[in-house]
Amino acid sequence: MNEETIGGFLDGLASSAPVPGGGGAAALSAALGAALVAMVCNLTIGQEKYRAHEDTMARVLVAATEQRALALALAAEDGAAYGAVRAAYGLPRATDEEKRARAARIQEALKVAADVPLRTVAVAARIVDLCAEVLPGGNPNVVSDVGVGALSARAALDGAALNVRINLALIKDEDYKTRTAAELERRLAAARAQAGEVTRQVEERIGR
Amino acid sequence: MNEETIGGFLDGLASSAPVPGGGGAAALSAALGAALVAMVCNLTIGQEKYRAHEDTMARVLVAATEQRALALALAAEDGAAYGAVRAAYGLPRATDEEKRARAARIQEALKVAADVPLRTVAVAARIVDLCAEVLPGGNPNVVSDVGVGALSARAALDGAALNVRINLALIKDEDYKTRTAAELERRLAAARAQAGEVTRQVEERIGR
Repeated sequence: MNEETIGGFLDGLASSAPVPGGGGAAALSAALGAALVAMVCNLTIGQEKYRAHEDTMARVLVAATEQRALALALAAEDGAAYGAVRAAYGLPRATDEEKRARAARIQEALKVAADVPLRTVAVAARIVDLCAEVLPGGNPNVVSDVGVGALSARAALDGAALNVRINLALIKDEDYKTRTAAELERRLAAARAQAGEVTRQVEERIGR
Repeated sequence: MNEETIGGFLDGLASSAPVPGGGGAAALSAALGAALVAMVCNLTIGQEKYRAHEDTMARVLVAATEQRALALALAAEDGAAYGAVRAAYGLPRATDEEKRARAARIQEALKVAADVPLRTVAVAARIVDLCAEVLPGGNPNVVSDVGVGALSARAALDGAALNVRINLALIKDEDYKTRTAAELERRLAAARAQAGEVTRQVEERIGR
């Protein structure tokens, strides 16, 4: 993912090829958010007037760099998980035994395909946290970048949630569905509220 | 921009280098949205069961491809415009004449730096339109991708708007400020409402 060109990724996304798709695009949005948080840290660290926030910025910089790597890894995993779902749908179904085996493999693959964007939701939520952490002490000249970071993370959060739900809709294990949907809603509610609050504070500081 | 690697762009974004910044990230989000619209068209065109929507999809595909190119061009322009603002701030200010010349140059550069993200807002709004156009007749298997496309365009819209506002806040030409702020609000209100409506319909179809 790191080595791919932006044009190549966008061409692949735009094409009729099965991957990358929306799950990969959502994970890339999370990576954009994490990179913007890191930028704010890097433009704050080492400046005398922000000395009091140096430790926070150094800690958030490490965390944002980790979350960016996780997001890019999830973009790749999303493609693999979707490939496994397609492969399972492609299994033979001539006999009853084949039908049962195929159905079981599809269900397993769908759970993986729901788990990957659920982890993207968690990464995006963590990036929203990091935006909230840099906002008070970050270099005010780049306050709009904190805002764009939160908006990118928010798009990642909601986009990954759509990908969790579209897979959940096809899963028959009611226990898994209930548990995963509950975890999704819990993560979404908190992170959406925090992203909204960060954006509101950024707009207030810009003086809209 | 097309030739740059994803890792290289993210490293540049995360670094303390002046560009790319949030304006470039917002424009890239718009490009992600446009690519997802194109993907939905490409996965709908040529399939007998979606024959009735073939013309719409072909037309939207052309438009989405154009908007993607515009978005990437705006990402590059955003960097150049920000560079010009920094260069203007760096002009000498030893004499009164130098001070006047520098102030004038800064004001000119800030107007360009506000105009570029205002054009990104327009491109993102157009991509939201395209999401709304593909939703009714697009391949329902990729309805979540229409949703991620609208969310990416929405992040681009709001992120670019923050970049218009942070530049407007420094501009002294009250006429320009009033006119630009009014145009921004007009574009934002319509596009935000439409993006929200697309996302709501996608969630309804997924059956959240």
